[in-house]
Amino acid sequence: MSVYDKLELLGIKLPAPTGSVGAYVPVARIGNIVFVSGHIAKRDGKPLAGKLGAEFTTEQGKEAARSVAIDLLGTLHGALGDLDQVKRIAKIMVLVNSTETFTEQSLVANGASELFVEVFGEIGAHARSAFGVAQIPLGACLEIELIAEV
Amino acid sequence: MSVYDKLELLGIKLPAPTGSVGAYVPVARIGNIVFVSGHIAKRDGKPLAGKLGAEFTTEQGKEAARSVAIDLLGTLHGALGDLDQVKRIAKIMVLVNSTETFTEQSLVANGASELFVEVFGEIGAHARSAFGVAQIPLGACLEIELIAEV
Amino acid sequence: MSVYDKLELLGIKLPAPTGSVGAYVPVARIGNIVFVSGHIAKRDGKPLAGKLGAEFTTEQGKEAARSVAIDLLGTLHGALGDLDQVKRIAKIMVLVNSTETFTEQSLVANGASELFVEVFGEIGAHARSAFGVAQIPLGACLEIELIAEV
Repeated sequence: MSVYDKLELLGIKLPAPTGSVGAYVPVARIGNIVFVSGHIAKRDGKPLAGKLGAEFTTEQGKEAARSVAIDLLGTLHGALGDLDQVKRIAKIMVLVNSTETFTEQSLVANGASELFVEVFGEIGAHARSAFGVAQIPLGACLEIELIAEV
Repeated sequence: MSVYDKLELLGIKLPAPTGSVGAYVPVARIGNIVFVSGHIAKRDGKPLAGKLGAEFTTEQGKEAARSVAIDLLGTLHGALGDLDQVKRIAKIMVLVNSTETFTEQSLVANGASELFVEVFGEIGAHARSAFGVAQIPLGACLEIELIAEV
Repeated sequence: MSVYDKLELLGIKLPAPTGSVGAYVPVARIGNIVFVSGHIAKRDGKPLAGKLGAEFTTEQGKEAARSVAIDLLGTLHGALGDLDQVKRIAKIMVLVNSTETFTEQSLVANGASELFVEVFGEIGAHARSAFGVAQIPLGACLEIELIAEV
């Protein structure tokens, strides 16, 4: 089954790819390795701002992580032309805008990790680091970057 | 001298590799590049929780970093079958659970860096970023991820 | 035009490369991929210490980011011998020492991103993550790491 059939089955509609963003680019490539820039959490096109442990619960953070993962796929689709070229989701880094005491970054990050496995199956299983940061651009609750093999 | 002889000389016993962890995997590979997921500091199998600058001193953090480096080797051993396949420890990222004013992340990270050089010699010398984060999953004092060439 | 001609046109003088730093190295390589260690912001050879949102404005942070980018080029020059070997600046990670409420990490990071594009043109356009951290070694206001293709 193609990735696009799978996305349709899951009821996922890819967003428009993140366009060029001034001084940097959404995707850069070295041979068969694709580096995708950190994508922040958004809702209705605007930054979803706030901290886990304050404005957002773990469950809300997990939903936001799933949504960022879908945005990353939109960007990959835009860059590659064809998501079926992805051979492996290799690594993601999940930055969680956290209060000093919030320690459930792993549960939040699962929202993204589970999405990649749902969409890609075995080749969606990736290495990961997740941790709490002091802030994220525009105050977003989450930022995720990705490395994939194509 | 094989890596295993060296580990024995240093009196280091590898832990069981970190197993699959639900939505993500401990190790993912693109060609000859191996990405190892962030490993948190543990003691007796439980997260070693607390912040540098508050619950832990720099020296204690450095010991914890050495211990996480050994856990990373355990995971690499589990994934590769043979640590002598490692051609280079290329990069580590060391996240230190820090108070707002703790600035000795480099000294803490040396606990891991020195271990890799002790075990691998010249090919253990790696690029590195170390910095202080707001929190780490389960409140752990440290998290380290690794990229190696095999 | 060679990178060195471009640097001269821009009035940029490369600093001495960051030397070996004890337990780790400034640059490690896997095939055609070069990993450059996190470089902290300095002024007159000393750490430029302080937080964005407190001691430094966004504009000062942006200047510091440009300066760190030049230091990274100095280190790359030292490691490669010839900056014209760079085929692509693939990814940078920009860590901004931030108060809990500072959210302009992207604007700060542009100081580095714009420098790479000025110097390298199209092949200087890179993927990027920028975010706010709790602290940085020696209290520096910024730390940037880089991955390049050679």
